[in-house]
Amino acid sequence: MPPQTQARQRLLIKGGKVVNDDLSVVADVYVEDGVVKQMGPNLNPEPSTGLVVLDATNKLVIPGGIDTHTHMEFPFMGSRSKDDFYTGTKAAIAGGTTMIIDFAIPQKGCSLSESFDTWKSWADPKVCCDYSLHVAVTWWSNKVKQEMESLVKNKGVNSFKMFMAYKDVYMVKDEELYEAFSCCKELGAVAQVHAENGELIAQGAKKMLAMGITGPEGHELCRPEEVEAEATQRAITIANAVNCPLYVVHVMSKSSAKVISNARREGKVVYGEPIAASLGTDGTNYWNKDWAHAAAYVMGPPLRPDPSTPGFLMNLLANGDLSVTGTDNCTFDICQKALGKDDFTKIPNGVNGVEDRMSVIWEKGVHSGKMDENRFVAVTSTNAAKIFNLYPKKGRIAVGSDADIVIWDPKATRTISAKTHHQANNFNIFEGMVCHGVPVVTVSRGKVVYEGGVFNVTAGEGKYVSRPPFPPYVYKRVRQREQVCQPVPVKRAPYTGTVSGTSTTRK
Amino acid sequence: MPPQTQARQRLLIKGGKVVNDDLSVVADVYVEDGVVKQMGPNLNPEPSTGLVVLDATNKLVIPGGIDTHTHMEFPFMGSRSKDDFYTGTKAAIAGGTTMIIDFAIPQKGCSLSESFDTWKSWADPKVCCDYSLHVAVTWWSNKVKQEMESLVKNKGVNSFKMFMAYKDVYMVKDEELYEAFSCCKELGAVAQVHAENGELIAQGAKKMLAMGITGPEGHELCRPEEVEAEATQRAITIANAVNCPLYVVHVMSKSSAKVISNARREGKVVYGEPIAASLGTDGTNYWNKDWAHAAAYVMGPPLRPDPSTPGFLMNLLANGDLSVTGTDNCTFDICQKALGKDDFTKIPNGVNGVEDRMSVIWEKGVHSGKMDENRFVAVTSTNAAKIFNLYPKKGRIAVGSDADIVIWDPKATRTISAKTHHQANNFNIFEGMVCHGVPVVTVSRGKVVYEGGVFNVTAGEGKYVSRPPFPPYVYKRVRQREQVCQPVPVKRAPYTGTVSGTSTTRK
Amino acid sequence: MPPQTQARQRLLIKGGKVVNDDLSVVADVYVEDGVVKQMGPNLNPEPSTGLVVLDATNKLVIPGGIDTHTHMEFPFMGSRSKDDFYTGTKAAIAGGTTMIIDFAIPQKGCSLSESFDTWKSWADPKVCCDYSLHVAVTWWSNKVKQEMESLVKNKGVNSFKMFMAYKDVYMVKDEELYEAFSCCKELGAVAQVHAENGELIAQGAKKMLAMGITGPEGHELCRPEEVEAEATQRAITIANAVNCPLYVVHVMSKSSAKVISNARREGKVVYGEPIAASLGTDGTNYWNKDWAHAAAYVMGPPLRPDPSTPGFLMNLLANGDLSVTGTDNCTFDICQKALGKDDFTKIPNGVNGVEDRMSVIWEKGVHSGKMDENRFVAVTSTNAAKIFNLYPKKGRIAVGSDADIVIWDPKATRTISAKTHHQANNFNIFEGMVCHGVPVVTVSRGKVVYEGGVFNVTAGEGKYVSRPPFPPYVYKRVRQREQVCQPVPVKRAPYTGTVSGTSTTRK
Amino acid sequence: MPPQTQARQRLLIKGGKVVNDDLSVVADVYVEDGVVKQMGPNLNPEPSTGLVVLDATNKLVIPGGIDTHTHMEFPFMGSRSKDDFYTGTKAAIAGGTTMIIDFAIPQKGCSLSESFDTWKSWADPKVCCDYSLHVAVTWWSNKVKQEMESLVKNKGVNSFKMFMAYKDVYMVKDEELYEAFSCCKELGAVAQVHAENGELIAQGAKKMLAMGITGPEGHELCRPEEVEAEATQRAITIANAVNCPLYVVHVMSKSSAKVISNARREGKVVYGEPIAASLGTDGTNYWNKDWAHAAAYVMGPPLRPDPSTPGFLMNLLANGDLSVTGTDNCTFDICQKALGKDDFTKIPNGVNGVEDRMSVIWEKGVHSGKMDENRFVAVTSTNAAKIFNLYPKKGRIAVGSDADIVIWDPKATRTISAKTHHQANNFNIFEGMVCHGVPVVTVSRGKVVYEGGVFNVTAGEGKYVSRPPFPPYVYKRVRQREQVCQPVPVKRAPYTGTVSGTSTTRK
Repeated sequence: MPPQTQARQRLLIKGGKVVNDDLSVVADVYVEDGVVKQMGPNLNPEPSTGLVVLDATNKLVIPGGIDTHTHMEFPFMGSRSKDDFYTGTKAAIAGGTTMIIDFAIPQKGCSLSESFDTWKSWADPKVCCDYSLHVAVTWWSNKVKQEMESLVKNKGVNSFKMFMAYKDVYMVKDEELYEAFSCCKELGAVAQVHAENGELIAQGAKKMLAMGITGPEGHELCRPEEVEAEATQRAITIANAVNCPLYVVHVMSKSSAKVISNARREGKVVYGEPIAASLGTDGTNYWNKDWAHAAAYVMGPPLRPDPSTPGFLMNLLANGDLSVTGTDNCTFDICQKALGKDDFTKIPNGVNGVEDRMSVIWEKGVHSGKMDENRFVAVTSTNAAKIFNLYPKKGRIAVGSDADIVIWDPKATRTISAKTHHQANNFNIFEGMVCHGVPVVTVSRGKVVYEGGVFNVTAGEGKYVSRPPFPPYVYKRVRQREQVCQPVPVKRAPYTGTVSGTSTTRK
Repeated sequence: MPPQTQARQRLLIKGGKVVNDDLSVVADVYVEDGVVKQMGPNLNPEPSTGLVVLDATNKLVIPGGIDTHTHMEFPFMGSRSKDDFYTGTKAAIAGGTTMIIDFAIPQKGCSLSESFDTWKSWADPKVCCDYSLHVAVTWWSNKVKQEMESLVKNKGVNSFKMFMAYKDVYMVKDEELYEAFSCCKELGAVAQVHAENGELIAQGAKKMLAMGITGPEGHELCRPEEVEAEATQRAITIANAVNCPLYVVHVMSKSSAKVISNARREGKVVYGEPIAASLGTDGTNYWNKDWAHAAAYVMGPPLRPDPSTPGFLMNLLANGDLSVTGTDNCTFDICQKALGKDDFTKIPNGVNGVEDRMSVIWEKGVHSGKMDENRFVAVTSTNAAKIFNLYPKKGRIAVGSDADIVIWDPKATRTISAKTHHQANNFNIFEGMVCHGVPVVTVSRGKVVYEGGVFNVTAGEGKYVSRPPFPPYVYKRVRQREQVCQPVPVKRAPYTGTVSGTSTTRK
Repeated sequence: MPPQTQARQRLLIKGGKVVNDDLSVVADVYVEDGVVKQMGPNLNPEPSTGLVVLDATNKLVIPGGIDTHTHMEFPFMGSRSKDDFYTGTKAAIAGGTTMIIDFAIPQKGCSLSESFDTWKSWADPKVCCDYSLHVAVTWWSNKVKQEMESLVKNKGVNSFKMFMAYKDVYMVKDEELYEAFSCCKELGAVAQVHAENGELIAQGAKKMLAMGITGPEGHELCRPEEVEAEATQRAITIANAVNCPLYVVHVMSKSSAKVISNARREGKVVYGEPIAASLGTDGTNYWNKDWAHAAAYVMGPPLRPDPSTPGFLMNLLANGDLSVTGTDNCTFDICQKALGKDDFTKIPNGVNGVEDRMSVIWEKGVHSGKMDENRFVAVTSTNAAKIFNLYPKKGRIAVGSDADIVIWDPKATRTISAKTHHQANNFNIFEGMVCHGVPVVTVSRGKVVYEGGVFNVTAGEGKYVSRPPFPPYVYKRVRQREQVCQPVPVKRAPYTGTVSGTSTTRK
Repeated sequence: MPPQTQARQRLLIKGGKVVNDDLSVVADVYVEDGVVKQMGPNLNPEPSTGLVVLDATNKLVIPGGIDTHTHMEFPFMGSRSKDDFYTGTKAAIAGGTTMIIDFAIPQKGCSLSESFDTWKSWADPKVCCDYSLHVAVTWWSNKVKQEMESLVKNKGVNSFKMFMAYKDVYMVKDEELYEAFSCCKELGAVAQVHAENGELIAQGAKKMLAMGITGPEGHELCRPEEVEAEATQRAITIANAVNCPLYVVHVMSKSSAKVISNARREGKVVYGEPIAASLGTDGTNYWNKDWAHAAAYVMGPPLRPDPSTPGFLMNLLANGDLSVTGTDNCTFDICQKALGKDDFTKIPNGVNGVEDRMSVIWEKGVHSGKMDENRFVAVTSTNAAKIFNLYPKKGRIAVGSDADIVIWDPKATRTISAKTHHQANNFNIFEGMVCHGVPVVTVSRGKVVYEGGVFNVTAGEGKYVSRPPFPPYVYKRVRQREQVCQPVPVKRAPYTGTVSGTSTTRK
């Protein structure tokens, strides 16, 4: 279907309760050319011919979800994640998500721009909904710096991820982090970190294997949550030293979340992203007697054995200490996972979630009474749009916004299962979870792409979304601080006495 | 000026940056009949005759401030606060505040409804901007309960304040708190507390006087911050026991703010209200050598001697741990303060702020880089509107909202001084503070009431604003929890063995 | 056996590792007249005739345990606890405890002295080891104050417990707490509190019953841990207001322990006493399907359902944030518990522990690697002796100390069971716990009272131990603060201006 | 004076209150051959001829202080610290300290053993009191590991310090820390860290200089306290990963102290050492208008501008969260400091304290009522002796202990001043501090070396003290954990399904 056809689609969503992050109000929503044109009671857009009408009575009309963290068809650990940009975005749509942000990840020494182009070339022909790309900085040089600038200025990239783990593969050292953060601050980009102490993981993994612990439980045992919390603290400290806003991807543990919350209390500009997995399940699964089951939960950082973790993270997400949610969707099937059957360090890291996220958060967050529907919209969509400078085009249902809209039935329930999901994997880490809150219709840029279980998608229909630098939500404070919070030298008479010793610089 | 005339006023605010809590956007704002009718670029409302046009180029256009906490003409401690509803609201307007919420406070044993009526009869003929009334619950009985219900259902009251201090005057005991909170929860009202341990204050005051400490420093020494933190913790615990949302008025100390923040992390529905005084100055003033100066800062709970308090509170306000801001404006002049010249317990408690709040928060919050302009709007206006169920009529500039609007010059500065302020007092606790951020025009319900230092107000022009119960922002979660978070009995076979001992109830 | 006979017993403990709280050293211990006379290598006390020699090779020789918290034959809740001062102290001895401190608890309005005399008259003829008595203050009047003074000066009482729970039975109000704490401080006594908000418990119990929750789980549900933490915070705040050292009995929850730890970080003189039950088991038992099982764990404050509680408390005990350990031993059999078979509020509160404490703490504390043997001695004996001013007569093995000594086999294990224990109850809350660390010989005042499972005790052989006021360990700091930390008035010129208003005292 | 003469000195200290960490008791102390032989009331050692008698009536008799952290005659930053082992130990003695532990610090790539020998060769001929040597690990190789082993086994070294700061000079990387900690754990040594993020300091220093901040305030601004707290957290995490006990030298900030306290709450074996400087003064001095004054306070990590820091650290020292105290005594005079007159990075880092420590802690700790005399002894002497395995030879006054004893007058005061102190510098960072608590007599190994302001010392009279590995106070828990806290593999059937993908190891 050519874009122009799509553009002409006219849509009226009638009688629903429109839920934005600040307010819920019963209103009709009228969409033309992929954009919301009118909102209010009893709309009657003319002409009525060619108008698709959706009845949303007794349902919620919410901004489509934005999944801030996916890895579609990611070549990783000797394999490649099963969800590609087609199946992955289809699954997203089925779950009420209308935009994903994936990661272009160059090998050490390789070009960021080429990596970006590669990922984009994978995505463009396949995506069924809008998407964007974070870019990873896995090494440092002047060329990297120049490429970052070019990506920001020419390619609509406003976020870069640095790995503090995956030693010798993606991990960067503290001095590289410092440089990368400095560069992000200058360019107006959001610095992201995978926060785990890669050195400790490497040592811990060796230790576990030496102790004969080769199964998936070793994956958690070699990198307990303090390994995550330490790196989070370190990243925040380094970022703050250069006044760079920081975004911590996949917050998996209570301790790491506390570190983030405490930093925010001190006024640091830090955002934490828990994911569907850390909000919906836990690391006790690594001790499951069935190897395949246990291995299916292997991801980095690992889920935590403390069963109070998901509730704790959800409380902070409700409260505002954590900001947004992704999934780290990076699915490997059991045959791929089996690469690590004798050695947990070889199990490809990754879990599902792109389809499940909205329902899992509704169930554990809204149905449980921890947050209301407006906060749900904030943490599944609006805040992501604000942080990545897409707001209010994305993340809000308002006149002028993109018509990425989901009709959500808060009373309906569905049971998550690998048998029925659309993710390209035969395992689901949320298997059996009964979720209130079901997406009944998904609209992407004004087109009904999913309705009552039926898809109406075309590969390549989604668009790459450019994200301009200096998101005001993130950077206004940062820039103001630059101007007013600089230290000034004390005015003093110079020292005029004797000097003794060898005047050497402390190297 | 009769209301009908006012209603016809048409107003166009051109070229400003409209700042709401989620977004800033350059747009014109067109107002008719006291309500925003249009927003967008290059508005040209017809007819142009009779249209008041305000140029807001390079300025911000923000929702008028809502001061959640004032005490105008309050009969208190043998005196009466100097700002009445006329001078007080005029001062508010001059400072960029277009709505105040005052407190009707009955004596113990007296009718809440009569108290409400009394306060309303004081306010109605005098107010220059919109206002509403919280009502205090200073004792407990079935009649009180019935009056609460009646106030909620018939008078537009959705918040009740309980004092944990002022022993024998306003203080209620824990069992009364429990009842009041239960009643608030049933009625859909927000429970507010003045959180200080009144018993410890009474004892502490005796002790200080016995030690010969009669000056204003005794006021703080007899009620150090742990007295505030303890009561805050207790109120939160009691409120949580009945699943009642809690609003802590005048958060004055770091410890109390931490208690609130921690409770929020645990998922409790608690809101903290720091005030201009606690955000802008500190308790070292009680140790000032000039008695009149020191006495001028006496309020309850006291300002804290720890000079890092204001910055700490501002960080939490920026971060979301604290929610809204008031002033506790309750001015007494030096001759009134002098009632306590030989005994600090007789110094009437109260400070200014209704005019200063917006500028103080801009200076210490926005200019300092702790928060951006959007968060400023949130904490000075939007969040108050949400919590007290006035949103989006108040607290937002949007089509359909009340035209309570301020044109704010973020670059201009003014110096706060008793010589130039409009508060009815010859002392200002912020004397000499240079503030960036100046309200240049204030619009109340579509009428320009203040422009360039000149008032255009009429006593009684403001309106009492009814506030419906069950504010969704506060109560959605609460109600959901009621439904899903109830404990259930364990199913067991009954005990069928012998029973020995005297079966008495534990009384 | 008449006391004079006992006094002549001479004892040599050979070859053991003597463990004090600061040091372990292999040494012989020679005891005469109930007191340690010599310590060192290769002692050969003369004459060898009449010398009892115990071989402690490869074993530890530790100070006998001091159980700071028991309720023997306590008339409570319509019943009376089963362990009396005979069976209770016998069980203590079998577990390695050589001194208990019980509570004399008057009814409201009744004499403290008479209560003390009553309890003493129960204990004196029965006790098999040394004991002392805390006295409860359950109401307030001048007479109570005088009795406290008399008990301190004439009866060797240096600790008083106040209940913040058991409304209408034992509970005192905040103003009474204030008075009692003030009085303790003046007398040099340690103020103790049962810290739970009695008002919330009363309301919570009503609510649970109204919801149809009548079983033991209701006991915890009506008084969740924040009810304990709140009262702990309040007690600390009030005690600190009068500079009175505070001792929190039976710390049962993580939140309460955190409150204590935080207060200590701020320099407050506060001691926390976890008990065998809170260190060794948890509140999930209240949800046991067997009513009798669940009811057996009912005590106040309740055990907590969070299974990480015991480990958390043990960490704080190891670290020094918590100080001593008791048991709250107050056993009721199932027939007594059955008083509450239809209403959890009628289940007599109390559990066992006086025999189990030492082994439970060894297992969960020392064997687990959380603390070493020296810290074990500190928390089971030495610190109690210091706080209650018995040190170094009790709590240390040193020349001149009472020969309350246990030979402890750290390698041996035993399994706790109601079938084999000596507590007067047919249920043991630690049933099935395998404990390393077994007392093989217990010596009380120089007499071998238990050896290899065999008792050699006589009722009444134990002695009431007087405890002088102002324990230096507790009070040195307190007294110094009294002298140096007093506020002083600011020196100012008097205010000489006009005074307006009615000069009334704020009542 | 030849050693044999000294050894024959017999000494009787009469009538004092002997203060150990657990107890104070009035007793005479009799010393022979440098060792305590008797303690008790009214000692009359025979013969009375040749007996030196010291009257300690109304005075305290305390264990001589152990300064855990000095740098005498340290070649550093182009200069050499002024106090050498002679003047430094003389000053120590005058201040009531009878043992110091200095640091042998090899350059990167150099031999640890040679460095040890060098330092020992400097110290042996000069020391006036006992001393020992920590050894620094400034790089890593197999040779370093072997040298560590040799130093532990043959030279009495049981502690190694690693620097996380001083990039390119002493700083080791995380993987080196990991190795060093592992090695310490194996050898039974205490791992020590200078905890600051050296990378951030290097960057921060560049930034400050670029901003034109060249004065001493730049020293603090380039390494604010979060730089210290981050490294502290990281060191704890790494140490814990290998179950190695950790000792954090010179705790300078509230945030770092909190990190340590929190780790201890979680059961980690961590010790924090605040120093006289951080307990007695603060970093506001860096903003002093006089360059020489400001420069005199330059040390690393810096003192903190937050004036509540010293009181906070003292509270934690009183409470047990911090354990011991040193000084980092490393004096440079103004002419040496002037090396950095145009560039703060060249100011030699170091301050005085070896003489002042005991009085400063008494004044700020004991006189203020924060700790009692027993805790004073613990934190100035006993705990150091325990941690470094010198107890009870050092750190306690008991029969058999070394006669390192100080007669302390708790009522007397002295004013600290460079004019009167014995430290080899013309500046004292505590100048003008009036201290209660004055050492009136100092006894080193039974010899009166200082009395009433007069020295009786001989260079080289002090002895090097060997410290055996595996201090029980530190290592008992650690070893137990090794045995019982190891994870075990889950028992599972092997995965027998298909494997797909390229089986590569995650590098």
